[in-house]
Amino acid sequence: MTWTVYLSGEIHTDWRDQIIAGARRLNLPIEFTSAVTDHAASDAAGDMLGPESSGYWRDHKSSRVNGIRTRTLLQKCDIAVVRFGDRYKQWNAAFDAGYCAALGKPYITLHDEDIVHPLKEVDASAMAWAETPAQVVEILNYVIHA
Amino acid sequence: MTWTVYLSGEIHTDWRDQIIAGARRLNLPIEFTSAVTDHAASDAAGDMLGPESSGYWRDHKSSRVNGIRTRTLLQKCDIAVVRFGDRYKQWNAAFDAGYCAALGKPYITLHDEDIVHPLKEVDASAMAWAETPAQVVEILNYVIHA
Amino acid sequence: MTWTVYLSGEIHTDWRDQIIAGARRLNLPIEFTSAVTDHAASDAAGDMLGPESSGYWRDHKSSRVNGIRTRTLLQKCDIAVVRFGDRYKQWNAAFDAGYCAALGKPYITLHDEDIVHPLKEVDASAMAWAETPAQVVEILNYVIHA
Amino acid sequence: MTWTVYLSGEIHTDWRDQIIAGARRLNLPIEFTSAVTDHAASDAAGDMLGPESSGYWRDHKSSRVNGIRTRTLLQKCDIAVVRFGDRYKQWNAAFDAGYCAALGKPYITLHDEDIVHPLKEVDASAMAWAETPAQVVEILNYVIHA
Amino acid sequence: MTWTVYLSGEIHTDWRDQIIAGARRLNLPIEFTSAVTDHAASDAAGDMLGPESSGYWRDHKSSRVNGIRTRTLLQKCDIAVVRFGDRYKQWNAAFDAGYCAALGKPYITLHDEDIVHPLKEVDASAMAWAETPAQVVEILNYVIHA
Amino acid sequence: MTWTVYLSGEIHTDWRDQIIAGARRLNLPIEFTSAVTDHAASDAAGDMLGPESSGYWRDHKSSRVNGIRTRTLLQKCDIAVVRFGDRYKQWNAAFDAGYCAALGKPYITLHDEDIVHPLKEVDASAMAWAETPAQVVEILNYVIHA
Amino acid sequence: MTWTVYLSGEIHTDWRDQIIAGARRLNLPIEFTSAVTDHAASDAAGDMLGPESSGYWRDHKSSRVNGIRTRTLLQKCDIAVVRFGDRYKQWNAAFDAGYCAALGKPYITLHDEDIVHPLKEVDASAMAWAETPAQVVEILNYVIHA
Amino acid sequence: MTWTVYLSGEIHTDWRDQIIAGARRLNLPIEFTSAVTDHAASDAAGDMLGPESSGYWRDHKSSRVNGIRTRTLLQKCDIAVVRFGDRYKQWNAAFDAGYCAALGKPYITLHDEDIVHPLKEVDASAMAWAETPAQVVEILNYVIHA
Repeated sequence: MTWTVYLSGEIHTDWRDQIIAGARRLNLPIEFTSAVTDHAASDAAGDMLGPESSGYWRDHKSSRVNGIRTRTLLQKCDIAVVRFGDRYKQWNAAFDAGYCAALGKPYITLHDEDIVHPLKEVDASAMAWAETPAQVVEILNYVIHA
Repeated sequence: MTWTVYLSGEIHTDWRDQIIAGARRLNLPIEFTSAVTDHAASDAAGDMLGPESSGYWRDHKSSRVNGIRTRTLLQKCDIAVVRFGDRYKQWNAAFDAGYCAALGKPYITLHDEDIVHPLKEVDASAMAWAETPAQVVEILNYVIHA
Repeated sequence: MTWTVYLSGEIHTDWRDQIIAGARRLNLPIEFTSAVTDHAASDAAGDMLGPESSGYWRDHKSSRVNGIRTRTLLQKCDIAVVRFGDRYKQWNAAFDAGYCAALGKPYITLHDEDIVHPLKEVDASAMAWAETPAQVVEILNYVIHA
Repeated sequence: MTWTVYLSGEIHTDWRDQIIAGARRLNLPIEFTSAVTDHAASDAAGDMLGPESSGYWRDHKSSRVNGIRTRTLLQKCDIAVVRFGDRYKQWNAAFDAGYCAALGKPYITLHDEDIVHPLKEVDASAMAWAETPAQVVEILNYVIHA
Repeated sequence: MTWTVYLSGEIHTDWRDQIIAGARRLNLPIEFTSAVTDHAASDAAGDMLGPESSGYWRDHKSSRVNGIRTRTLLQKCDIAVVRFGDRYKQWNAAFDAGYCAALGKPYITLHDEDIVHPLKEVDASAMAWAETPAQVVEILNYVIHA
Repeated sequence: MTWTVYLSGEIHTDWRDQIIAGARRLNLPIEFTSAVTDHAASDAAGDMLGPESSGYWRDHKSSRVNGIRTRTLLQKCDIAVVRFGDRYKQWNAAFDAGYCAALGKPYITLHDEDIVHPLKEVDASAMAWAETPAQVVEILNYVIHA
Repeated sequence: MTWTVYLSGEIHTDWRDQIIAGARRLNLPIEFTSAVTDHAASDAAGDMLGPESSGYWRDHKSSRVNGIRTRTLLQKCDIAVVRFGDRYKQWNAAFDAGYCAALGKPYITLHDEDIVHPLKEVDASAMAWAETPAQVVEILNYVIHA
Repeated sequence: MTWTVYLSGEIHTDWRDQIIAGARRLNLPIEFTSAVTDHAASDAAGDMLGPESSGYWRDHKSSRVNGIRTRTLLQKCDIAVVRFGDRYKQWNAAFDAGYCAALGKPYITLHDEDIVHPLKEVDASAMAWAETPAQVVEILNYVIHA
C-alpha cells in the first residue's frame, strides 16, 4: 500500500524537502503532493488565460486555476501536513486544515511553539502537532511501518 | 423560511452588531449564530473540566469544547460570513472558510482591500467579498428578498 | 407536511405565476422558491459590492451573489421544475437540472415538443416532462394529495 | 499519478483532438474520457434494445443508455472540460457542468467571448474559462506539472 | 418529536389502516406516509402528461411520476414498514427495502412465515420481521415511548 | 480503464455465462462480479459458524454472511445487470436494484416482456431494459468502446 | 434553536436524571433522548415478535429492535454524552462513540479518572471528557448560551 | 481483485497470526491491515512529539497519532474483523465496530460465547459472529472464492 501525503502551507523554507528526503532515507512508500510552490508561477497561474487589469481578479483567476490542483490533491491524499511559518498570514494553510477537518481527513500541523495560541483551533482538529520536519518523518514512519 | 447566518472571525470590532442591527432594521428573517465571542470565556472554556498546567493542553481542551458549538452551528447554517480584521492571525476564520468550502456551504468574506492578496485562496472559494458590514446586509437582503 | 418546489429557468413568460396560482386554487401545501427573476436586478447583483469595468467579471460577481440564493434553495427543495422557453440559451436551467440530477433531487421539465431532441439528456434524467403549467400543477396535486 | 479528464460538450469541431494532441506532445499523464461523440451512434444508442415509434421515447431510451457511460465517466474524472460552440443549444454540456458543480468536481469551460453573458452561471461555478484548446492544454500542464 | 413512518408494499389488504388505527389508539406521535395506494390511479399517473400507445412507456412514465412522491417520502421517513402479501410479485416493495438499506434507514418487514425463505436477503437487512400489523404497532410504541 | 459489472438475480439459467462469454469474444475490459450462485452453498453460508435449529435464523445468518460479499461487490461495481426470470420471487434481485438506485449506480434490467408491468418501478429507475443477454453485451460494448 | 442531546451508556446510576435536572434548572433549550434504559424491557424488546429458544438470537432480535430507536436518535442528535461506569463492559457505549465519530457528530465522555487509560481511543475522538454530570451541564450551558 | 481486511481489537493472543496464516494457506488475495499491535509502542506513539507530564494527555496524544493510522486503514478496508478477548475492556474494539457500522462497512466479530450478552449491540450490527480464527478464515474464503 502506498500512502499519499499532501504538504500544505509555507513556501519560504525547505521543510518540504526535509520531509521528502527523510522519508526517502527510510524508504517509506509515500507519494508526496503539494500546491505549486513557485510563488511567482502560482500568482501568475491565471495569466495564461489572458491578462487582468484588476489585482483582485488576477488573484481570483490564479487562485481558481491553482484550486484545480489543490482541491484534487487534497481530496486524494491520505494525510496532510500543514506548515505555519513565522512570517506571512498563511491563511491558505489554515483554509486547507479546515477543508481537511470537514472531510474527516487526518492532518498534522508543523509550527513553532510561539504560535500555539493563535493556532489553537487549527491544532485542536489536528491529529498531531510537530515542531520539526524530522518529527513529521518519525510520525509517518510510525504510522506506516510500526 | 428563516435563514441561518453564521458570523465567523474577528472579535475585536463590532461588525457582528452592525450586521445584526442592519438585518433587524430590514426585518430580515435571519437567525444569526456565532462562536463564543468573549475572548476570555472562550480561552477558559475547558477550565470547567479542571485546570491544566500546560498552555498547549489548556488551549487544546478549550478549543475542543468550543468546537462542540462551532461545528454544530457551522453545519446548520445556510450562509457564513467570515471576517478578517487588520490585526491578529485569525487562522480560525480561514479554518472556518475551508470547512465551509469542503461542505459546499456558501460564504461571504468581509475584509479591507489591503489584505486581498494574502486572502486570495480564501476569497477565491467565497461567493462574495464585502468591505463593509453594510454591504453584507445589502447582500443578505438581496439574497433573501429580491 | 409542506413541500418545497423550486421553479428554475425562463423568466420571460408568466409560467411561474400560472403554477403558483394553480397550486393556490387547489390549496396545495407548497412553498415555491426561485432564483431572482428580475433580469436587471439579477445582472446587477454584484454591483452593491462595487463597480466592475470588465463585463466578464461583473457577470461573474453577480452570478456568485445569485448563487448564494440559488444553491441554498435548490439544496432545500423537494422537487424542482425546470422551464425551457423558445428563446435564449437558458444554460442556467440545464445547469440546475444537472445539479439536481447529481443530488438525486427529482425534477420535472416544462417545455414545448419542438425542443425535445436537444433536451434529450436533460429529459432523460427528469422524472417527468410537462408541456403546460397546468400539467405541472396536476402532477404536483397528484404527488402530494393522491 | 495519472489524471483523468472528461471532455464534455460540442461534437462538431475538433477541439477534443487538439487538446489530446497537445497533451500528448507534452507527455502529460492524462487519460481522456468523453461521451460517445458519433452523433448518429449516440442518437441510436437505444435501438439495440428494439425500435421505438415515438421520437421522444427513442431519445429517452438512447439518452439513458448513453447515461450509463457519461455518469460513470463524469463521476470518475478528476477534471472536466466543458465546451460550448457557437451553434446548437448544447444543454447537455450545461447539464454536465451542473452535475460537476454539485459533486464538487472542478471544471474548465471552453467557449468564445461572445457567449460570456448567457454562460455566466456556468462560468461562475467553473474553475477557469478558456477560449482555445491550447489554453486548456496549458492549464492542464500547469496543474499537473508546475 | 414526531416520527415519520413510511408504509411500503402490498395494496390489496387493509394492513395500512390497521397500523394507522392502532397507532392512533395509542396516541403515537407518528406521521404515516405511503405511495399512492389506488392501483388504477397509480397506473395512470403519467396519463395527465398525454397518452402513450406502448404499455411499457405508459408504465415507465407513470412509475417516474410516482417516484417523485415515493423517493421524497422514503428519504424523509425515519422508519419504513415493508409489507409482502401472498399474491403478486411485489418487486417494488423489495426495491424500497433495498433503497432503505443503502441509505442506512431502518425498516421492518411484515409478512407471513411461509415466505421467509425467498425473503431472506430482504429480512437479513431489516431491523425486525413482524407477522401482524398489531406487532408493528407494538414495536412502534416501544421504539417511541419505552 | 477496466469496468466492473455486477450480475445480480436469477441463478437457474446460464444468462451470466452468456454475458461473460459474449464480453470475452469482444475483448471487453470488464471484471464481472456476482453473488455466490451455488444455491445450496449460498443457503448454507452461515453453517460454518455452527448449526441453527430455526429455519428463519439459518436463513438470516447465511444471508448476512452472503451480504459481506454482495454489499462489497455492489458498492465497487460501475454497472449492475439485474436479471428476473419467469420463476421464483427473486426479491433479492429487486432489493439489489433498489440498493443501486439509492447509490446512484446505473443498472440494466434483463427480463422478458411478460413481466414488464410488475417490474415497472424497478425498470423506471433502470438505465435500460434488455430482453436477452446478447443485448446486454451489445450495450456494454457500446458503453465502453463506442 | 433547540438542541438535541443523546445520553448514551450506563443505566445503573442516575447520571441521566442529574443532567436533565441540571439543564432544566438553567432552562436550557435541550431535548434529551436516549436508548431504552429499562434493562429488562430492553432485553425483551424482540419478544413481542415471538419467543426465541436461543439466547443469542433473542439478544440479536432485541438489539435490532432497539437499534430502530437508537440509530434514529443518534443520527438526529446534535451532541451525544457517552457515560462509562465502573461496572460492566458497556461495549454499546463505546460502539455509540465510534458511531458518532464516523458521522462527525461531537460527543462528550463522562467517566471517572481511573479508567482513562482503557478509554484513551474513545476519549481521543471526544470533544471533552467530564467526570461529573454537573460538568456536563456546565458545558452544555456554555456551548448553548455563552 | 484484492480484498483488504482490517483486524481490530485484542492484542494479547495470536488470533491475527492464525487468520493471516490460514488465509495464506488458501492463497486468499487479501491484504491484512491493523492498528499498531505493540502495546508499549502504541502507548508511546506521541512521545516522539515531546514528553507529557500528565498521563491523560500522553494517552490523548498517542491515541491521536495512532488514529492517523487506524482511521485511514478502517476507511480503506473492505471488511473488518473485530476481536474481543476475555480480559481487559477493549473499548477501542467496540469503538471500531461502531465506526464501521456508521460507514456501512461489513464487520465480523470474533469472541467466545460467554460474552454474547454484553456484546449484543455490537453483534447485532455485525454481519457474522465467529468463535475461532479458523471460522473467520472459512468465511473469508467463502466470501472471496465461493
